[in-house]
Amino acid sequence: MSFNFEIKKHSTESKARLGKIDVNGISFDTPVFMPVGTSASVKSITPNMIHESESKIILANTYHLILRPTLDVIKEFGGVKKFMNWDGAMLTDSGGFQVFSLSKLRRITDEGVEFRSHIDGRKLFFTPKSVIEAEHIIGADFIMCFDECAKHDSTHAYVVDSIRKTHKWALECKTYHDSQENSNYQYLGGIIQGGMYDDLRRESALTLSDMDFPFYAIGGLSVGETPELMHEVLAKMEEFIPKEKPRYLMGVGEPRDILNAVMEGVDMFDCVMPTRNARNGEAFTMNGAIRIRNSKHKKDVSTLDPDCDCYTCKNFSRAYLHHLDKAHEMLFSTLMTIHNVRFMQIFMSELRKSINDGVFLDFRKKILSSFYKNNI
Amino acid sequence: MSFNFEIKKHSTESKARLGKIDVNGISFDTPVFMPVGTSASVKSITPNMIHESESKIILANTYHLILRPTLDVIKEFGGVKKFMNWDGAMLTDSGGFQVFSLSKLRRITDEGVEFRSHIDGRKLFFTPKSVIEAEHIIGADFIMCFDECAKHDSTHAYVVDSIRKTHKWALECKTYHDSQENSNYQYLGGIIQGGMYDDLRRESALTLSDMDFPFYAIGGLSVGETPELMHEVLAKMEEFIPKEKPRYLMGVGEPRDILNAVMEGVDMFDCVMPTRNARNGEAFTMNGAIRIRNSKHKKDVSTLDPDCDCYTCKNFSRAYLHHLDKAHEMLFSTLMTIHNVRFMQIFMSELRKSINDGVFLDFRKKILSSFYKNNI
Repeated sequence: MSFNFEIKKHSTESKARLGKIDVNGISFDTPVFMPVGTSASVKSITPNMIHESESKIILANTYHLILRPTLDVIKEFGGVKKFMNWDGAMLTDSGGFQVFSLSKLRRITDEGVEFRSHIDGRKLFFTPKSVIEAEHIIGADFIMCFDECAKHDSTHAYVVDSIRKTHKWALECKTYHDSQENSNYQYLGGIIQGGMYDDLRRESALTLSDMDFPFYAIGGLSVGETPELMHEVLAKMEEFIPKEKPRYLMGVGEPRDILNAVMEGVDMFDCVMPTRNARNGEAFTMNGAIRIRNSKHKKDVSTLDPDCDCYTCKNFSRAYLHHLDKAHEMLFSTLMTIHNVRFMQIFMSELRKSINDGVFLDFRKKILSSFYKNNI
Repeated sequence: MSFNFEIKKHSTESKARLGKIDVNGISFDTPVFMPVGTSASVKSITPNMIHESESKIILANTYHLILRPTLDVIKEFGGVKKFMNWDGAMLTDSGGFQVFSLSKLRRITDEGVEFRSHIDGRKLFFTPKSVIEAEHIIGADFIMCFDECAKHDSTHAYVVDSIRKTHKWALECKTYHDSQENSNYQYLGGIIQGGMYDDLRRESALTLSDMDFPFYAIGGLSVGETPELMHEVLAKMEEFIPKEKPRYLMGVGEPRDILNAVMEGVDMFDCVMPTRNARNGEAFTMNGAIRIRNSKHKKDVSTLDPDCDCYTCKNFSRAYLHHLDKAHEMLFSTLMTIHNVRFMQIFMSELRKSINDGVFLDFRKKILSSFYKNNI
């Protein structure tokens, strides 16, 4: 098994890059968007439908999988990809974000984090080693180091100590991972933290660079700060992240945030937004989001997006989707999710083309004005 | 457009018959099972998935469609088949059953029924003509007369008056329908009522026979009586229902009830059971129902049914389904429904084969003992 990242083209206008990742026999172009399959399911769609969207890689959440179905069950299947019948690529996060955002009663020490499950209140203790052990059992192609995801408004002093722990844990994760056979076919990424502080972001990027991970994630962004601040933090830290390796911005995102991050040299993205918003009645198009619950769609025979080739757009009207939502039919979530995931992949494909054609900044400008101009 | 029913084979052992229905260019063999798409959606599955189950005809509920999305919307699309993107055959009931089971504040007169919507309390008045008008707009291939569905424990005197109204309404429905162009491509069935009273069932069957409908439904069964009583009522009324026309037992059902009804010469069935039970965690197999929530399935790598060729059985384990249910993932309903609908079509296909092979009674006996022997 193998991992390779090749940069095929650098944008001359910005730090954007067009690349290709090969991992364990699966190839995909970057910048890439990964739909989220939190609990071993991209909510409301089948693996066939994920493939039809041309998604090549999905994300699953280690924290959720440890709680349910539990590692015991996943081990029985030789990994979560077989468990959920997904034969594309997969990345698992480390649970760090969820421990800090979902769970209760956290006690953070240099050894790890003690917390209570948000499902049944059960007490758990995550350590760098226990998380990597879990990710080995889950068996994704890409796995992440356990980190502390500090709040966006944390003080400088807090973040200083937080990244010290994150760096210590990263080294422990890597040392343990490298000692295991799984390191021959699972690739561990380091997570750069540092809050909104440029000096700490730089320190974190440089410290992790020295550890020589095969790819780098940027954590602790898109956690409540403004899009402008996120862009600024990314712009200032870019030069300190190894250029020849994939860069992954965790939990992002919105077309706007993806465009800004690609402009600063980011290659990989994941976000629940397209799937979650689909279920909440928001369908994406290049001209903005359609709020399908709006009564003006009641008799609308048009499809969500005449330019979209997804199953939903080829077969169903806005009026039908509006009706399914009103009638609380589960098919609503399925059809909306099919569309939004496909939208993201079409968006990424056009974004990659714009880099290839040397017109990324124009593309960015066009989408920023069309996607956000209004709601249909 | 056209309608034709051909009986291809009579069972020599029972009143079971093997037939073929051609309607508006769509063909299917009988006995046939119709999945229910109440509100223009077979709950949690796409039209593609309905086709994959080899379902050729589905049912939709006039009552529900009148309330939501409303006839106004359906008219805009030229019928509910186009609205929901279903290109197989369709049958609509008349709303009679729902008016009596779901709605409140009923006032029944010889002219029709006044009631309140179970959704918003809005007052509505259904008459034989208004129901046929609605079914014309909805546009199914097969439509039904408006009838009164009496409770299974109604007195003889009540049912005498009830079938008098049902017969009067049937004639009004037929007269109006025959006067309309839609009668060239929509086929109206009469509904035989009569409660559990053999004399009234006979009277209803004979009265409606005289009206010469292209097919006949048996209503007012599977409404709370025992399976044995239902079988008895069917057995005694069979000789009074025209033999050369399709016979449809409304709202049935269970494999047991289908087997009993086929034995008494019934050709068509519909029921929410396979789809509803799927969502409630019950997967059907020829050896009985699997209650997937049972914790013994937690690590079970086997599929629901090794003999089933559905997408669920070809790709997912019981443990995965158990997990999806626990994690409240919507994909659970989709995968379970795919299986149960396909199960029903495999069951019907084997049932038809047993008639063809002259071994229907053996098949019935086998299923009655295997399906009901236990729960897995």
